[in-house]
Amino acid sequence: MMAYRRVALIGLGLIASSISHAIRRAGLPVTVTGHARTGATREEARRLGLGEIHDTAAGAVRGADLVILCVPVGAMAGVMEEIAPALEPGATVSDVGSVKGSVIAAIRPLLPEGVHFVPGHPLAGTEHSGPAAGFAALFDNRWCVLTPPADTDPRAVAALEAFWQALGANVEVMDAEHHDLVLAVTSHVPHLIAYTMVGVADDLSRVTESEVIKYSAAGFRDFTRIAASDPTMWRDVFLNNKEATLDILGRFTEELFALQRAIRLGDGEHLRAYFTRTRAIRRGIIDAGQDTAAPDFGRAAQPAPAG
Amino acid sequence: MMAYRRVALIGLGLIASSISHAIRRAGLPVTVTGHARTGATREEARRLGLGEIHDTAAGAVRGADLVILCVPVGAMAGVMEEIAPALEPGATVSDVGSVKGSVIAAIRPLLPEGVHFVPGHPLAGTEHSGPAAGFAALFDNRWCVLTPPADTDPRAVAALEAFWQALGANVEVMDAEHHDLVLAVTSHVPHLIAYTMVGVADDLSRVTESEVIKYSAAGFRDFTRIAASDPTMWRDVFLNNKEATLDILGRFTEELFALQRAIRLGDGEHLRAYFTRTRAIRRGIIDAGQDTAAPDFGRAAQPAPAG
Ligand SMILES: NC(=O)c1ccc[n+]([C@@H]2O[C@H](COP(=O)([O-])OP(=O)(O)OC[C@H]3O[C@@H](n4cnc5c(N)ncnc54)[C@H](OP(=O)(O)O)[C@@H]3O)[C@@H](O)[C@H]2O)c1
Ligand SMILES: NC(=O)c1ccc[n+]([C@@H]2O[C@H](COP(=O)([O-])OP(=O)(O)OC[C@H]3O[C@@H](n4cnc5c(N)ncnc54)[C@H](OP(=O)(O)O)[C@@H]3O)[C@@H](O)[C@H]2O)c1
Repeated sequence: MMAYRRVALIGLGLIASSISHAIRRAGLPVTVTGHARTGATREEARRLGLGEIHDTAAGAVRGADLVILCVPVGAMAGVMEEIAPALEPGATVSDVGSVKGSVIAAIRPLLPEGVHFVPGHPLAGTEHSGPAAGFAALFDNRWCVLTPPADTDPRAVAALEAFWQALGANVEVMDAEHHDLVLAVTSHVPHLIAYTMVGVADDLSRVTESEVIKYSAAGFRDFTRIAASDPTMWRDVFLNNKEATLDILGRFTEELFALQRAIRLGDGEHLRAYFTRTRAIRRGIIDAGQDTAAPDFGRAAQPAPAG
Repeated sequence: MMAYRRVALIGLGLIASSISHAIRRAGLPVTVTGHARTGATREEARRLGLGEIHDTAAGAVRGADLVILCVPVGAMAGVMEEIAPALEPGATVSDVGSVKGSVIAAIRPLLPEGVHFVPGHPLAGTEHSGPAAGFAALFDNRWCVLTPPADTDPRAVAALEAFWQALGANVEVMDAEHHDLVLAVTSHVPHLIAYTMVGVADDLSRVTESEVIKYSAAGFRDFTRIAASDPTMWRDVFLNNKEATLDILGRFTEELFALQRAIRLGDGEHLRAYFTRTRAIRRGIIDAGQDTAAPDFGRAAQPAPAG
């Protein structure tokens, strides 16, 4: 049985919109309320029927037993300050931020007495943003990581866990510091590298942009999807997961230099051995249902739609 | 009208197999012959009906008016030595190698008098290899780059161009050195970076492999497809396109260090500006029909098949 009857979404972008769609799809007996900073976003959310959209954050959270902060990581504290006075005793505050340590550090001091805080991060997204980008299936078979501080009421955690499962996700609980390291590896550094590679291609004068675009199917293209993600969201991720990002980045450049050296010296054995090792992880990801085994993700077989 | 009546494929992996399927799909009045080094590959090619499979390379090329070398870049010279005595005067030798400068340097001295040489590279592939991985649509709407040396007979180039167009590809002619630089940007360095990132993830003791796999959908997963490509093929690419790869890699690490520094110093403006710039290229790739605009390549909407 769902513990919540009124769920408030603060920030109405891709993630909040997908939560709203997924609640409706699941048929949960829940009223969804919402608020976004700008009028245009609120209007769009109303048009999309995402829920009862309020002009103030405080209005949206009043009476809610679950409040999910769906704004960029660097905006969490400001939003929390705004809603704190309107929160109901016994309500749960959660979030969907891609970094957990810094969000916890920013939110906890602002929590009113008697309000639970269960930070979360659904590991599901696309390169698109804004309310129109959301869809009900976004969380299906994806993981949602909860990182409750040690003194959190286990019932509040269990209730949020059931909520995410109803939305299609699998839930895992871990501590925030470990989350931030795991995500540095599986998400943050990959995004930084993809952005860098696309930036380099964009910047070369000897190879034109139209050549890069034309010949992108040879590998480059796979990077451009994640390098098209929202700049504000990603700025905030890197500023807020600085330590783990720099740590993994250090490992990355160390390994890259070793491969670079092998290329320079013509050490084919080193290269081949390295490239062989990396295939097992791909296999594991497909077996775990986190990607499709279709060649080229099945893209090659279907011509790309125009536009 | 197709200039060729007998096309020999030397090496029977993903690319050769796809050429054979695409010839059949196009209904070209052409006999396909083929040869692969190992008996098992030849057997598989026979089972797949890829053409008249010969036990020797010389046998496959005898009487052919087009011979396409479909082996790893480092194996081109050896194969060319083997077939040279059996080539027909007036025949065209081509290849599909991912590097062009070094292949030309290796092949040209071995060309018999009266045989044309039109090097080529279809910019289409998947992460799978071997004859069973081939399919007729692989080249559809993809580019095939031809890099004929300056003294090549234009009729030989035009005939090969028509051949690739019949297989579904668009053809572009450029010089080999420029090809190798363009491919370093759009393919070779992206592959090296993807291999490195997957290697780093595989190597961390603080984050387990099962965690990496579980949480890969957050971005990492996009890298693993290209990092699952054939190790031998890629070893040969890097050994043979050393100069351009190291050149672009130098640019990449320079930019990466600048972003790393911005993270360390908390320079959010630098990060946001960089991440904004890279979105235009993605848009261009989608508009050019080289990728799909479906979120997450359309993967998210369809659950991944098992296996
Ligand atoms: N996209 C992903 O792949 C993904 C995956 C998992 C988690 N997340 C996390 O989910 C959160 C939201 O991401 P999203 O993809 O849904 O973003 P989005 O589509 O860009 O939407 C962001 C929302 O936050 C609001 N917002 C932005 N800056 C704000 C500020 N300074 N103060 C108040 N509101 C502000 C925006 O309001 P306006 O429209 O009114 O400006 C918008 O409604 C982020 O913390 C992100 O780290 C994202
Ligand atoms: N895969 C791509 O994405 C892609 C895209 C464009 C171009 N290319 C280029 O296409 C060529 C073939 O790639 P592919 O993907 O088709 O490879 P593949 O599926 O791995 O097949 C390679 C073929 O070459 C043969 N071969 C390997 N080493 C050899 C050697 N030392 N001597 C003789 N034959 C040898 C193999 O024979 P056995 O099976 O008998 O060992 C096999 O038949 C490469 O030059 C590659 O750079 C690849």
